[in-house]
Amino acid sequence: MPIEAIKSENRRLILLDQTCLPDEVKYLSLDDYRDVISAIKCLSVRGAPAIGIAGAFALALAATKSERYDLDYLKEVGLEIATCRPTAVNLSCAVNRVLDRFASDKPITLPDSLDLLWREAEAIHEEDRQMCRRIGEFGAQLIEDGANVLTHCNAGALATGGIGTALAAIYVANEQGKRIHVYADETRPLLQGARLTMWELAEARIDCTLIVDSVAAMLMRQGKISQIIVGADRIAANGDTANKIGTYSLAVQAEKHSVPFYIAAPMTTFDLSIATGEQIVIEERSEDEVTHGFGRRTAPESVSVYAPAFDVTPVGLITAYITDQGIRPGGRKSN
Amino acid sequence: MPIEAIKSENRRLILLDQTCLPDEVKYLSLDDYRDVISAIKCLSVRGAPAIGIAGAFALALAATKSERYDLDYLKEVGLEIATCRPTAVNLSCAVNRVLDRFASDKPITLPDSLDLLWREAEAIHEEDRQMCRRIGEFGAQLIEDGANVLTHCNAGALATGGIGTALAAIYVANEQGKRIHVYADETRPLLQGARLTMWELAEARIDCTLIVDSVAAMLMRQGKISQIIVGADRIAANGDTANKIGTYSLAVQAEKHSVPFYIAAPMTTFDLSIATGEQIVIEERSEDEVTHGFGRRTAPESVSVYAPAFDVTPVGLITAYITDQGIRPGGRKSN
Repeated sequence: MPIEAIKSENRRLILLDQTCLPDEVKYLSLDDYRDVISAIKCLSVRGAPAIGIAGAFALALAATKSERYDLDYLKEVGLEIATCRPTAVNLSCAVNRVLDRFASDKPITLPDSLDLLWREAEAIHEEDRQMCRRIGEFGAQLIEDGANVLTHCNAGALATGGIGTALAAIYVANEQGKRIHVYADETRPLLQGARLTMWELAEARIDCTLIVDSVAAMLMRQGKISQIIVGADRIAANGDTANKIGTYSLAVQAEKHSVPFYIAAPMTTFDLSIATGEQIVIEERSEDEVTHGFGRRTAPESVSVYAPAFDVTPVGLITAYITDQGIRPGGRKSN
Repeated sequence: MPIEAIKSENRRLILLDQTCLPDEVKYLSLDDYRDVISAIKCLSVRGAPAIGIAGAFALALAATKSERYDLDYLKEVGLEIATCRPTAVNLSCAVNRVLDRFASDKPITLPDSLDLLWREAEAIHEEDRQMCRRIGEFGAQLIEDGANVLTHCNAGALATGGIGTALAAIYVANEQGKRIHVYADETRPLLQGARLTMWELAEARIDCTLIVDSVAAMLMRQGKISQIIVGADRIAANGDTANKIGTYSLAVQAEKHSVPFYIAAPMTTFDLSIATGEQIVIEERSEDEVTHGFGRRTAPESVSVYAPAFDVTPVGLITAYITDQGIRPGGRKSN
């Protein structure tokens, strides 16, 4: 079974500190919401679903430690939590859900208030866990015994409250007794594939091989990849999908080599307010991530760098979407 | 003008120490052939043409320093030089050429012998310089004013005795007054693009931008790449081309996005003894280059890694070959 990166125990929040991976497996045991905010900011916990869950628990921790449970206080703390990373919509969704529930239930005593806050945070966590499980069960139907699955970045247990999205399909297929081998792209510049995916697959005893990103095409040409499964940051109404930089490149290679290309993501990742991928703004990251990513400088001083955080894969290159509500066809014609 | 990475001065060999790039620009001034062997082994000088030239000069240094010039001694030293890197055919070609010339000319005095050895090494260097120049002049015909050229790895002045192969086309087009912008793939795992290509282009004041390898596809989709020019390690009789890992991936993207894809290499890179790319053995590199490449570990202990040093691009994906004897068409149908 995959690792649990986030859990609550005796009204504390336990987080696997991902900044220490793969060197060290260290858990943070937190009882102060401000420490949760720090953990979110410094990426000890990452992945949109996972930080949403951590945010909900942070609100419960605030009330528990301060013994304050008036709505004004909770709203103030909630705002602080929700804005600690600007782009993560899951964070404000989770906090607002707990606050709405609190406002409508109106608990009167401290014990009742704390019960409500912890229960709601645990409900959010449990729903995410079940969502991952459903994605895994649908996805596993697409994986045959002996498959060689290629994945990119980390869409696994380390990014969610459960067994992940893209990796969920692999975990469930493995539970079903299918023999699976995974190729993990290292995923430059931040190496989430090398650091995180390789680590959590090894922990779960899934057979896996690390490659630099540019090796994937050669493996497909050699017939060594059965299918590609990746996660998604946002999916437009027409199916165009934003995901970690390098995903589009894989989708083109997959089409060329007749390798099925799947996006694994909950239905909540579909953003019907945007019609196509063209409307998705491409965030650019710091040049340092490319030129100084590993503790030493790997390019000349003051060079120009173009470092997009993600790219957009058009629906026409996607075989299907593996969602928590079933498998939905993509727009790729061949295979 | 691009940097000179290798030159002879007052019967010493001057090498730009590429292991110090991009942090430090340091030249080695060598008068002992054993130091040249060390420099070749530790990659202070790299690139097949450049190490061939360094090998020829090493033979001249051996005779100069020892004042020995009997053919037996020179053959013994020549064997030591030729075998210091096992796969570089240029090294033994250059050494054998000098030895053959020595054996046929039979110089009698020490001054005559040294003159012959230095002259022959300089002739090899000069021929390489002219070969680069011719490739550059043919290649520049393919580059229009305002072009955005993408390249991979380092096929520049740092790899040859002249202005390079792939980069030669860019240098000559730049001399002709064309405005050119270069995108350089960083080229994992050893980052020759980030460390070497970015450095030598900046030295030559060519406008350039560094990208991680997986960004190339997105740039092509956005119409930001005019053409791709890369070097070659070996070209089979049918035109299939072995080059640094990631080249095949670029060629597939180029075809998909109708971007011309050129191989720049001297005619000597064609190996008519091999019919197709299928006969080219793919060398695998050390796992450490992927997992420890930057002075710290970037993947869990003892993970499995697949690290091919190069891949093979089939002739059908190549628009044309830019050689020292002109531009030869490749096998790509479209564009």
